[in-house]
Amino acid sequence: MSAKSQRYWTTDASDILRVGPGFRLADVDPRSTPGHTGRKDHGIADLAAGVDELDEYQERLYAASRSDATDASVLLVLQAMDSAGKGGIIRHVVGSVDPQGVMLTAFKKPTPEELAHDFLWRIEKRLPEPGFIGVFDRSHYEDVLIGRVRRLAPADEIERRYGAINDFETRLTEAGTRIVKVMLHISPEEQKARLGERLDRPDKHWKYNPGDIDERELWPAYMDAYQTVFERTSTDAAPWHVVPADRKWYARLAVQALLLEALEAIDPQWPAATFDVGVERARLAAS
Amino acid sequence: MSAKSQRYWTTDASDILRVGPGFRLADVDPRSTPGHTGRKDHGIADLAAGVDELDEYQERLYAASRSDATDASVLLVLQAMDSAGKGGIIRHVVGSVDPQGVMLTAFKKPTPEELAHDFLWRIEKRLPEPGFIGVFDRSHYEDVLIGRVRRLAPADEIERRYGAINDFETRLTEAGTRIVKVMLHISPEEQKARLGERLDRPDKHWKYNPGDIDERELWPAYMDAYQTVFERTSTDAAPWHVVPADRKWYARLAVQALLLEALEAIDPQWPAATFDVGVERARLAAS
Repeated sequence: MSAKSQRYWTTDASDILRVGPGFRLADVDPRSTPGHTGRKDHGIADLAAGVDELDEYQERLYAASRSDATDASVLLVLQAMDSAGKGGIIRHVVGSVDPQGVMLTAFKKPTPEELAHDFLWRIEKRLPEPGFIGVFDRSHYEDVLIGRVRRLAPADEIERRYGAINDFETRLTEAGTRIVKVMLHISPEEQKARLGERLDRPDKHWKYNPGDIDERELWPAYMDAYQTVFERTSTDAAPWHVVPADRKWYARLAVQALLLEALEAIDPQWPAATFDVGVERARLAAS
Repeated sequence: MSAKSQRYWTTDASDILRVGPGFRLADVDPRSTPGHTGRKDHGIADLAAGVDELDEYQERLYAASRSDATDASVLLVLQAMDSAGKGGIIRHVVGSVDPQGVMLTAFKKPTPEELAHDFLWRIEKRLPEPGFIGVFDRSHYEDVLIGRVRRLAPADEIERRYGAINDFETRLTEAGTRIVKVMLHISPEEQKARLGERLDRPDKHWKYNPGDIDERELWPAYMDAYQTVFERTSTDAAPWHVVPADRKWYARLAVQALLLEALEAIDPQWPAATFDVGVERARLAAS
């Protein structure tokens, strides 16, 4: 069942965007709006409507965890080429949720200390506690994406990591974490336009990095690496979702819908009081 | 100069709320609205107007830090009796800022590991990096508040801590952190009403803790401990602000104004490009 508050979906976002058998990234049109009627004004209305629903789910999830009623948590994993819109999603979708219930981590180039450990070491330390929505801006998948494209590790080590990731994510899922893996898919043409805008505006220069062009030259190699990631790590326990991202409104709405559907599946409930309400009323009155 | 976007202040929030020589907490009316014309609808309009201003300041601060142009950061320290509204401020004021620029920590009862270290050990680990707005929901001041009231440490250790805090905060300030220390001041009558509401509503039961009444019985001792905190740790480098908090709209607006004034004093600028814009335009066009 799709998010209750969002009226213009024709099907569940998690169904239509899920990477299943035979999926080919090359077949996805980055300007498409799968499962949604596709008008921008409808999308914006749906996004606004989803804010309150997400807000209540988050608070229920948090509340339920405080009473030991549940170990459930959510982990949103965001991967994308530069300028695909991760930042906008964190700002506009994640940013609409009470920050007290969110644990956000931006994974940068690994530090020497991080490199001295297994690639999952730094990830483990940032997993959401029960009741929280964890958000990874980049993740352990960098180690099989840039790691593969730039040959930062030997081929057999890259190979080992796909299995290690699946084992890791299965364990998280069994411990109560619902993992929502999202690749934001933009076209190279849209990226060119967005990088150009960063160059045109002095207040955007700080977001531009000459290295972005070097990465851009490797586009086909990155798409191959993503295709392999999908084939090797889109599991029943933790499937991937590819979100067309040339239209920012659709990408934001789709990620919000994926979060709503994950929370709906958890269906957290307000916990029962762990104290006698009548007794406490009397104590309060006498205080 | 007060926040540009907020029209109904008659003076700077940081001036009128600052704890100076001779300050007496007992003289502050928790229902008052110092420095603001005091109508709720004006306050709500000002709060909405401040959101965009805070948003731009935060982004400028973050951008400036990415270019090594500044070591500046902001640290908001929130202290209060239960139900005074810390959570609402985090949700509605801090929550309006891009989460990518915020580092929020809720300090709970110390763990055995934390207790095995000096009281500032866990605080150090959560200080904001340059460019960030750090937010402490409770803080090192717990160690001279509940620590004093509940005698969790010997008197001479409590005494030592005031000086240690001042040294610590002076060092932070010298390293570029602007510390905004806020005590939200509610009346015991307002607390009674708010705790009563938590008991009346099943969806608020999880926020109620029978221990809240035990703390409530110690109200005068807590007010004494706060008075001592103000006398000992409201320094030029890191002054305290007492925000009357019986009116939620005023407390939220005042904290937003304090943040805006701190950022205005830093006055972060968009950093200059560290690359040749023309060269990069050509590289992008050719890519």
